[in-house]
Amino acid sequence: MITTEIKNKLIEIVGTTYVFTDDETLNDYGKDHTEDFVFPPNIVVKPASTEEVSGIMKLAFEYEIPVVPIGARTGLSGGILALHKGIGLSLERLNKIEKIDEENLQVIIQPGVITEVLQNAVAQKGLMYPVDPSSKGSCFIGGNIAENAGGARAVKYGVTKDYVLNLEVVLPNGEIIWTGANTLKNATGYNLTQLIVGSEGTLGIVTKIVLKLIPAVQHNVLLLVPFFKMEQAAAAVSAIFKAGIVPSALEFMERDAIDWTMKFTEVPDLNLKPEIEAHLLIEVDGNYPEVLMSEAEKILSVVEEYEIDEMLFADTQDQKNALWKLRRNVAEAVKQNTVYKEEDTVVPRYELPKLLIGIKAIGEKYGFKSICYGHAGDGNLHVNIVKLDMPDELWKSEVPKGVKEIFELTKSLNGTISGEHGIGLVQKEFLPIVFSDTELNLMYQIKKIFDPKNIMNPGKIFPSTYQH
Amino acid sequence: MITTEIKNKLIEIVGTTYVFTDDETLNDYGKDHTEDFVFPPNIVVKPASTEEVSGIMKLAFEYEIPVVPIGARTGLSGGILALHKGIGLSLERLNKIEKIDEENLQVIIQPGVITEVLQNAVAQKGLMYPVDPSSKGSCFIGGNIAENAGGARAVKYGVTKDYVLNLEVVLPNGEIIWTGANTLKNATGYNLTQLIVGSEGTLGIVTKIVLKLIPAVQHNVLLLVPFFKMEQAAAAVSAIFKAGIVPSALEFMERDAIDWTMKFTEVPDLNLKPEIEAHLLIEVDGNYPEVLMSEAEKILSVVEEYEIDEMLFADTQDQKNALWKLRRNVAEAVKQNTVYKEEDTVVPRYELPKLLIGIKAIGEKYGFKSICYGHAGDGNLHVNIVKLDMPDELWKSEVPKGVKEIFELTKSLNGTISGEHGIGLVQKEFLPIVFSDTELNLMYQIKKIFDPKNIMNPGKIFPSTYQH
Repeated sequence: MITTEIKNKLIEIVGTTYVFTDDETLNDYGKDHTEDFVFPPNIVVKPASTEEVSGIMKLAFEYEIPVVPIGARTGLSGGILALHKGIGLSLERLNKIEKIDEENLQVIIQPGVITEVLQNAVAQKGLMYPVDPSSKGSCFIGGNIAENAGGARAVKYGVTKDYVLNLEVVLPNGEIIWTGANTLKNATGYNLTQLIVGSEGTLGIVTKIVLKLIPAVQHNVLLLVPFFKMEQAAAAVSAIFKAGIVPSALEFMERDAIDWTMKFTEVPDLNLKPEIEAHLLIEVDGNYPEVLMSEAEKILSVVEEYEIDEMLFADTQDQKNALWKLRRNVAEAVKQNTVYKEEDTVVPRYELPKLLIGIKAIGEKYGFKSICYGHAGDGNLHVNIVKLDMPDELWKSEVPKGVKEIFELTKSLNGTISGEHGIGLVQKEFLPIVFSDTELNLMYQIKKIFDPKNIMNPGKIFPSTYQH
Repeated sequence: MITTEIKNKLIEIVGTTYVFTDDETLNDYGKDHTEDFVFPPNIVVKPASTEEVSGIMKLAFEYEIPVVPIGARTGLSGGILALHKGIGLSLERLNKIEKIDEENLQVIIQPGVITEVLQNAVAQKGLMYPVDPSSKGSCFIGGNIAENAGGARAVKYGVTKDYVLNLEVVLPNGEIIWTGANTLKNATGYNLTQLIVGSEGTLGIVTKIVLKLIPAVQHNVLLLVPFFKMEQAAAAVSAIFKAGIVPSALEFMERDAIDWTMKFTEVPDLNLKPEIEAHLLIEVDGNYPEVLMSEAEKILSVVEEYEIDEMLFADTQDQKNALWKLRRNVAEAVKQNTVYKEEDTVVPRYELPKLLIGIKAIGEKYGFKSICYGHAGDGNLHVNIVKLDMPDELWKSEVPKGVKEIFELTKSLNGTISGEHGIGLVQKEFLPIVFSDTELNLMYQIKKIFDPKNIMNPGKIFPSTYQH
């Protein structure tokens, strides 16, 4: 597919140093954090500018070569896997923070900037970019936009889409567009910006981003509340909001999530009573410590209505870091311990107990165990279905049936099949559970407008029946 | 265009009581608040359900009849004007609040509910729908969604799009879809929800809406600060944010806006010094009065850096209402006093002084006066170009040139031509100032996917060259 002629043309565009065809590189750029999938592209290129990205796309368009935009490869739905081979286009060299605009509380940034690098850079100016995916230390802003990433603080501050004001996008034919304006309000034409956010690299390649920032918040308080009953932990989530509190994070971890994390990663032991079934990790933030203490007290009075053990109040930054590390390491702990599949269910938050009970029942039915944790404040529950000693045949035959039922359950609870990980490769066949043919057809026709030759990350999002 | 056969079929769908062809009704439903335009449809129908809307659209699709969805007719860009005649489809009977979901902080609502009715209904449950357009007492939620309405509180709480979780939409061919899920996070397919929001009734008819709510905020403090220099008032806006304050409203009114309002509408006289050029109306809100006082003091220390007169602190609810009435009556005062055109410019907020100075210079150049006011915290400045005794020929020949230059100025400041009023009929020819052909073509092709026969509010948003 990639002839010497095409390779030479790519070298002309990005320089010989930034074109790779060795197996190691192809392999590296053919996998992300989704299970153990590897789909290497034929060639990896690393452009350094919008113009270079445009040049690559013009070439790909002319020769009808599939192109996969590649970020930090931390995705959990297989968005960067080169299912149809072709060009792996890494955005890692577009990694500049072009301008922190302290006057307008905005930042202009390239897609290859690591989320935490951005957060730290704006924090030095007294500003905050609050979107906080668990992989923030390694994921790229560009990937966050592709998947509409969320994270723990979304419950108060919103997700990636809520901070994206304007995008420079290279279209599949190489043309360069801007989607909107650098303004907080906009009622000018269709919202192309929000059409691109969450489109998983299937409509074009984002090469520049204008993000909204907010003034930095000075203080926070962090509580860990152990619940004797898992469903009560889930129920307490909406009770906290009903009390008028909007926490800056409200995370749920079932017992195994904590046990595995304590066992397999470097976090302090909490010496839990054996009867504890789940925890809520609750943060409130603001600029007035006395207000935070009052909110913490209100939260305490809410959770005390349930069967809880002694609450842990993180006093120091070290204690806070330790608790957050515990939460952020859950995925890693599962990964180190067993083969698994991660589902990214999301429902209105009051439906969480029903979702959780339903997931456990479905697991019983099909013979698999699951470890559930996630952003309960948003109703976003990560379901890690763990293989452990489940026989291979059953893993292959039964788990997909269970996943399908879990997704049908989320739909019946007015939820959907991905809150923040995207559909990518691994969830695409399940999409008809939540969208009708008419709805999927509208989306697929939009795809064809942007990408008439189907070269832009082909094979993603849409079920196989739509891939033509 | 509307034969007796079609009229009878419409009567079959909605009942004879809800089909109108008398001149008075056609005239009433052929105008909104946009200048003095009147474009009556051939027939007005008032369906009472999604199914009836679907039935009407199936009929219109079959016979290729233009349909204009009509809300409360408070729009400022001519969105409901029946430019191509056809069916005026009023959503006024779809006016139910179906469910206030106190557990999930959501509301399920029909499009014909008045915004303030919704706000009051959820307030009784201790909840808040904070989007606050000036016309909230009469505008419909459906219209707010069509135009992505904003208002004074958007600076802290966001605009309509930030509260819309999921939409039921009747497509031009009568099919009924849902755009998303009732969840706070969603990374499942393309964001059809945000494509519909702000699409001004050109893609389909919204028949049901799921909105996010937040816990009600208990207290607020309101300040009116008189500035001796207009540009300093505009400059103070971004200084307030730089000080770490996010006000819940930050409104700008130039002197004439206040004077005209005091003269022509029922508001108290402020006894202003003649040298005062502009005011900022600043609100902070929250649940802790002592915090609000501290924020008010911080704001005072920021504005004191500029040349200001004595600040007015609204103590009582009556005083607050009076100040808000002053602000909300500006548009009415202008309307009562002269022929005018309203532009809805928006820029990053720090660019406001440049925008304001530029607008005045452009007015000088073309011989027109303007009255500027609006949501300065968002950089959203309403520019009322007032005719007064300007000769008709000059009004017709010079004002459009000036408007074009004002829009070019907003673009050069990274802004755009509408913050919250939409493009509709009156701004469509200006759209190429802010979007390239490629960008407009993408939008127009999306329009054609949804509406292949161009029957859905035809003649809106896109410049005449795109209307085919």
